[in-house]
Amino acid sequence: IQELELELEALEKGGYDHFMLKEIYEQPHSIANCMRGRIDHERKKINLGGISEYAAKLLTAKRIIIVSCGTSWHAGLVGEYLIEEYARIPVEVEYASEFRYRHPIINQDDIVIAISQSGETADTIAAIELAKRAGATILGICNVVGSSIPRLSHTGMYTHAGPEIGVASTKAFTAQVTALSLLALYLAQQQERLPLSKITSLLTALETAPALITTCFQSNALIQHIAGEIKDSTNCLFLGRGINFPVALEGALKLKEISYIHAEGYPAAEMKHGPIALIDEQMPVIVIATKDSSYDKIISNIQEVKARKGKIIAIITEGDTVIRAIADYIIEIPPCEEALTPILATIPLQLLAYHIAVMRGCNVDQPRNLAKSVTVE
Amino acid sequence: IQELELELEALEKGGYDHFMLKEIYEQPHSIANCMRGRIDHERKKINLGGISEYAAKLLTAKRIIIVSCGTSWHAGLVGEYLIEEYARIPVEVEYASEFRYRHPIINQDDIVIAISQSGETADTIAAIELAKRAGATILGICNVVGSSIPRLSHTGMYTHAGPEIGVASTKAFTAQVTALSLLALYLAQQQERLPLSKITSLLTALETAPALITTCFQSNALIQHIAGEIKDSTNCLFLGRGINFPVALEGALKLKEISYIHAEGYPAAEMKHGPIALIDEQMPVIVIATKDSSYDKIISNIQEVKARKGKIIAIITEGDTVIRAIADYIIEIPPCEEALTPILATIPLQLLAYHIAVMRGCNVDQPRNLAKSVTVE
Repeated sequence: IQELELELEALEKGGYDHFMLKEIYEQPHSIANCMRGRIDHERKKINLGGISEYAAKLLTAKRIIIVSCGTSWHAGLVGEYLIEEYARIPVEVEYASEFRYRHPIINQDDIVIAISQSGETADTIAAIELAKRAGATILGICNVVGSSIPRLSHTGMYTHAGPEIGVASTKAFTAQVTALSLLALYLAQQQERLPLSKITSLLTALETAPALITTCFQSNALIQHIAGEIKDSTNCLFLGRGINFPVALEGALKLKEISYIHAEGYPAAEMKHGPIALIDEQMPVIVIATKDSSYDKIISNIQEVKARKGKIIAIITEGDTVIRAIADYIIEIPPCEEALTPILATIPLQLLAYHIAVMRGCNVDQPRNLAKSVTVE
Repeated sequence: IQELELELEALEKGGYDHFMLKEIYEQPHSIANCMRGRIDHERKKINLGGISEYAAKLLTAKRIIIVSCGTSWHAGLVGEYLIEEYARIPVEVEYASEFRYRHPIINQDDIVIAISQSGETADTIAAIELAKRAGATILGICNVVGSSIPRLSHTGMYTHAGPEIGVASTKAFTAQVTALSLLALYLAQQQERLPLSKITSLLTALETAPALITTCFQSNALIQHIAGEIKDSTNCLFLGRGINFPVALEGALKLKEISYIHAEGYPAAEMKHGPIALIDEQMPVIVIATKDSSYDKIISNIQEVKARKGKIIAIITEGDTVIRAIADYIIEIPPCEEALTPILATIPLQLLAYHIAVMRGCNVDQPRNLAKSVTVE
């Protein structure tokens, strides 16, 4: 029986060494699934059937509050940027555990978005129950169909990423960001805020995401090499700005979870207000430094770290020669709309955490002390 | 000349080994200065002369946005709890550097509070200039009289903490929290929201703060002992919940800044969503576990850490025997109103960082790579 189970597991892993690796490589597919039926290619429109009934409420919302935990909280932070940028509705992102105990201010015209892969996260469930009693409209973004949060929500979107076995979330995160991108664009489109050309180019970007993620996988061998160079570090910093600040947080969390290296994410500009004191030649600093609106600023941040002898691993836009010249290691992602960079920049960070954890002999799929769904407080 | 300068410096340090230590011990005095003339003891009222002209605008604000950096950002997070709790106005706290570059949503009835010790923080100045152009009302909370932010603001409060020489902010932080407490109570009082008995007990709590801080200093020898026990750690976690979550962030930042130990602050309930994987017998975990509304929850969080063999240093309320029995080390602070715990719980964390840094031979007053005021982006 033992042998049969092992064979079954090997079969389920589809040739990959770990579920996490399989799930990383599934992302072109899972993101396509998340978008399926939601983009009308001909009319260049987003259709969110489940939500349309609540569209008016969403559009008149004075405020959107996103409640979530862990990786889903990072997806929420990306969502904040996207919704504020495209739909111009103020968004606040809260840790569910903090929100529920803080006597939060909730109004009847508030929309509360709950994000959870499992749909069973205890603190998030408690947060939406509280918000619902206060009269808010609840929109759930979950992966597991029929789970508690979708059932407790007024409306919502499934991420359709498929079952996620690895405890450290990968494909669920990028699908959450995809769902939030669709939601932000849907709201912008209903408001008729953005020029059609902008909507079209954002939709095209989303549609090309699966192919661009596949391109990101080409760096796998390079990432494995870099992993070998920094695997013995006790600490690590991840920096990003703007929409890629949450990606830095997520990259750090992956490394924490599966390699037990103390990694921390920071908005790059905050370095000067304290954390830069930590930098010396022992400290690898991973920077998301793609060619976006923060590009010039992030170059200065990289120079500050280099001046203190930190080791820079930069995620850059393909063909960038400026950062290539100053960073110790670079990992390229294809050029894309800024709104898409969080998804693409996440891929190399997932692979980096994965390879480091494997090299350190850690149990990648079931890291110590962690459960897949946190169904207790 | 060299000798004279050294003597002068010794004189300025007033018998303390470092400016930082002197400034820690000045806090009963600096907080009293921050409150002076602002509390009408007889009528149990807050008077904020400088702000009264803008009181109506503050009271009708749909939203308060706090922009700041570093330690001031942590003070802002405490302010968010206080203002939301007592004045019931939604507050959002933003990193100034993120806010200014994100195409933020700013309305004419928004209040933007800028917090900065020096009043010269470049990112914070840029953030308020942007908000001002968009029509928001700017309220500055600064320490240095006549600095740029107060001059650019419509209204504001000085913290009156006196000159701060140590690069790692101590007395400026507790004075910022005091100013925000006064502001929250002032708003609640204008709205006639809180029962008079609550206002009175909160005012009494503030008035007793200087004496209670002095009590906290009695743990100095114990804190020095604990510092000796954990000084060789490469990593450290700081946990808090609710109004003491920002205190955990601030405690971690102090340790980062002056001892170069990689310390990170986390909301305690988020541990299960990843960081708990880091815990082993090597990892000191400092928990703010005072007898407040999160008390029962934080006991569970402490038990989770202990189950993974983490070393617990708990800041507890005087006389608490439950946590004393499970923690490795305890540091007591006097019982007080929950609103006052951020100030009191900060004191032992400042002393802990100080003693660890001294034991590690670090330059406490001028940590490597850091400047007192970050006047560049």
